[in-house]
Amino acid sequence: MRKCSVGIDFGTLSARALVAEIGTGRELASASKEYRHGVMDDFLSDGQRLMPDWALQDPQDYLECLRVVIREALVRAEADPKDVVGLGVDFTSCTTMPVDEHLAPLCGKPEFAGNPSAYVKLWKDHAAQDKANRMTEVARRRGERFLERYGGKVSSEWALPKAWQLLDDAPEVYAAAYRIIEAGDWLVSLLVGREVRSCSMAGYKAFWNARDGYPSREFLRELDPRLEGYGEKLGPAPLPLGDRAGCLTEEGAELTGLLPGTPVSVPCIDAHAAMAAAGLVRAGDMQMIMGTSTGHIMLADDEKIVPGICGVVQNGAIPGLAAYEAGQCCVGDHFNWFVENCTPENYAKEAAERGIGLHQLLTEKAARQKPGESGLLALDWWNGNRSVLVNANLTGLMLGMTLTTRAEDIYRALIEATAYGTRMIIENFERHGVPIRGLYACGGIARKNPFAMQIYADVCNREICIARSDQGSALGSAIFGALAAGSARGGYDDIADAVEMGGVEERRYVPDPENVLVYEKLYREYEALHDYFGRGGSDVMKRLKQIKEDQRRG
Amino acid sequence: MRKCSVGIDFGTLSARALVAEIGTGRELASASKEYRHGVMDDFLSDGQRLMPDWALQDPQDYLECLRVVIREALVRAEADPKDVVGLGVDFTSCTTMPVDEHLAPLCGKPEFAGNPSAYVKLWKDHAAQDKANRMTEVARRRGERFLERYGGKVSSEWALPKAWQLLDDAPEVYAAAYRIIEAGDWLVSLLVGREVRSCSMAGYKAFWNARDGYPSREFLRELDPRLEGYGEKLGPAPLPLGDRAGCLTEEGAELTGLLPGTPVSVPCIDAHAAMAAAGLVRAGDMQMIMGTSTGHIMLADDEKIVPGICGVVQNGAIPGLAAYEAGQCCVGDHFNWFVENCTPENYAKEAAERGIGLHQLLTEKAARQKPGESGLLALDWWNGNRSVLVNANLTGLMLGMTLTTRAEDIYRALIEATAYGTRMIIENFERHGVPIRGLYACGGIARKNPFAMQIYADVCNREICIARSDQGSALGSAIFGALAAGSARGGYDDIADAVEMGGVEERRYVPDPENVLVYEKLYREYEALHDYFGRGGSDVMKRLKQIKEDQRRG
Repeated sequence: MRKCSVGIDFGTLSARALVAEIGTGRELASASKEYRHGVMDDFLSDGQRLMPDWALQDPQDYLECLRVVIREALVRAEADPKDVVGLGVDFTSCTTMPVDEHLAPLCGKPEFAGNPSAYVKLWKDHAAQDKANRMTEVARRRGERFLERYGGKVSSEWALPKAWQLLDDAPEVYAAAYRIIEAGDWLVSLLVGREVRSCSMAGYKAFWNARDGYPSREFLRELDPRLEGYGEKLGPAPLPLGDRAGCLTEEGAELTGLLPGTPVSVPCIDAHAAMAAAGLVRAGDMQMIMGTSTGHIMLADDEKIVPGICGVVQNGAIPGLAAYEAGQCCVGDHFNWFVENCTPENYAKEAAERGIGLHQLLTEKAARQKPGESGLLALDWWNGNRSVLVNANLTGLMLGMTLTTRAEDIYRALIEATAYGTRMIIENFERHGVPIRGLYACGGIARKNPFAMQIYADVCNREICIARSDQGSALGSAIFGALAAGSARGGYDDIADAVEMGGVEERRYVPDPENVLVYEKLYREYEALHDYFGRGGSDVMKRLKQIKEDQRRG
Repeated sequence: MRKCSVGIDFGTLSARALVAEIGTGRELASASKEYRHGVMDDFLSDGQRLMPDWALQDPQDYLECLRVVIREALVRAEADPKDVVGLGVDFTSCTTMPVDEHLAPLCGKPEFAGNPSAYVKLWKDHAAQDKANRMTEVARRRGERFLERYGGKVSSEWALPKAWQLLDDAPEVYAAAYRIIEAGDWLVSLLVGREVRSCSMAGYKAFWNARDGYPSREFLRELDPRLEGYGEKLGPAPLPLGDRAGCLTEEGAELTGLLPGTPVSVPCIDAHAAMAAAGLVRAGDMQMIMGTSTGHIMLADDEKIVPGICGVVQNGAIPGLAAYEAGQCCVGDHFNWFVENCTPENYAKEAAERGIGLHQLLTEKAARQKPGESGLLALDWWNGNRSVLVNANLTGLMLGMTLTTRAEDIYRALIEATAYGTRMIIENFERHGVPIRGLYACGGIARKNPFAMQIYADVCNREICIARSDQGSALGSAIFGALAAGSARGGYDDIADAVEMGGVEERRYVPDPENVLVYEKLYREYEALHDYFGRGGSDVMKRLKQIKEDQRRG
């Protein structure tokens, strides 16, 4: 009988289970299901209007999916629950909710019915921007060392700003919350019948560090005296990725369709699980998870201070290694913005006549050019800049336009700009003592856009390998499931062996020496503009944004 | 019987005659006719392929139109040739041709049949760019004072580069040319039976100045020893605008349909004739002639050194005053570029459904915004910058884009950028001792785009008056025709009286104080970017252009 491991990936809109064969990593089958309430960002399920920037979910949706997708995947794989050696779970993060001492979500209790603050705050809930700004300010003033690990700036997406916002919006919910818990931790805790915390979520989203723990009570008190006891709502000490969280209880077995006693891994953040799926276990390997935005996960032997990153966590993506996270706010979003807002009618007609999409048409036209042939150069800041400038006030720039500039020129310049942004991140790591040996990519753009990937290879002057799986998060979770099982139960004891279930495609993108020479020049121009507009040469973008906001309010 | 004056305007593609009533300036009728051969920029009329950047015309086309349009306009006006007190002529410039000692065009002679160099080089023939560059270089090295009057740079469109090019391309044509003459001078000379030169054409296009004359023989010899005698091909001393060039000969009468003895004015450059049509005779008045590009004509008491202008000529637009010319290379062209290349399909659909043009749709959407509300700022350099930077290597820039930026935001930002460019020209004049009292506009954009004109008024914080006539050049010529007649023949003795035939509309654009405050801030941002990219802060545009050219060649 084949042995297999199951990974379950809780994304923004749906959950997906994957059954992968131990040894080969062959993906036997998968199944997915959308959350019934999706993302509630305009209205709560009871019809009440939400504030701007809110994004909520209903935890019952996770359980509803959980009951279905593993069972369905097993049926499709023609696998039996007894063949499953382990279960791995990944989840979006920071996605948190208040629960009682039995880990029951407060939003399900009659006394909090209809209270939006009692629901899950999804990772992309941005209501706590003011809190985040305040935290950055206080942490800087106090010289809090944790801030250095996060590029010097607190994000509104993270756990503490969200908890503080909850406290302000609904003190009664905050008071009733025994824990405020990551959805991934909550789910795994339910499955194994004991409270589990992942070092990945605690490390990247809650300022936790194995050496220093969470931020101090003094810091919390200075933020707001009512926050002083927040630490008690966080729960037990986080565990490293790759550890076994526990084994399925009867209840967990009923929820999943697997057998009681099946080992379950410590949960992983969804994007970070893609590292194991690409087979990466070597210090110096960086993977770009490329979609609407790009996350860069970078493995290293130790934690160094690197400005402009999103965080660095020991065991945060692969056991035994530190993992740095960096990011570009806007990648696929750039290209989609351009196609939707700036592609002329005759191109739309041509694409329709040929039965292809606008992206493909623009790509074909842009691919006929040589680097630099359009004369255009852009700064990829349509959604601000996360790494390495950490500045949401930055905006897009394009220059070099003439009366002969065509849509495909602009499209290509936007792709190139995101590649320059990645090179900037790579050089920033190297400048701060974190050398990069191998460059990898996964996600929609990596798999479906060879034109863009060749540009990335040429701009970065590095070979790029593409992760083999198009279900990287779920496969990564399955790998962690196999690791949680251990060899005694038919899985693995060592991450280096377990990641053999993952890997990369044979095809790789090799830099073209002629293009490299031209992009070297163009990148220097990008760098100069990047520093001029991003490092204080001119604050025109910030001032324009201020005028814009004044005019919209006024 | 009504007395009237006839103005005839030789434009790029057609000639137009206008019959205007003396006293009221009422436009009784007009008639126009396209040149049979139009602009020959790909092929000569015999089918031979032309070099890139060439733009030729056939002088017989001018005569063919001349024989028709005045006669037709008179019929439509129900006017009799004996009611016509005078004839004025304006022409594109610098538009030159080689002629023999009888002023017969060389292209009509059997020995030069099929020789493109024997034809009229139209103003927009740019084949002499290398010659112009060389001239700038030599004039700078020699410290030639004439260069200061032209913003420090020779244009490939002007008379001497064109003549030099002719000498290189076809020395036999150059040698056979008794004169190399402006088409406007040639036509008026034909009509009055003696050689006439206009100070307007000589001043703006051939470096002539009443004090210093033409460039010296030494300068010409240093350019090319064969050019030393070029001055002899230029003909008699130029006459001021408003002077009578002479009266129609029998041949002139036959060509025009007017009576022999009808006074004819010294010819005017077409754009410059628009000053009289708007009724402008006051030092300090500036008019923007707004179309695909914008020309700024500025009246002043004397010639000062103003960097970055296109030229300054005493009597160059209005008798008795100096007229400065400045320009923006790309105005309507910007907006057209955007509509053709960057307006999305759904906008095209909406416009089609509503039966309006894309410009109108974008204008409606953009007009709903307040200044600064889009957060965008552009540099209007899609076709380089003429005034005040005189740099063809500059290219377009736009910044402030976000994922919510829409097509109308960009459209509006382009309009605003051209308005900032005009304000830059105004401030440049004032900084160099040439104050501006009144701001006027004519041309397609001025008359048809109130949205753009209000932006110009708000950006410049000045009232803008719009010329009444939509046939400004032809009306200006009619005014000069009436002035050539003098009061003794039913016309005028004084330009201040004659321009009563012209004037402005009652509607004027008045700055909105709230918008002025915001545009004041935005203009400061424009100015800072203008100087950074245009005055040496960063030469990135030039370097990108170099890379682009290298890649296209390579």
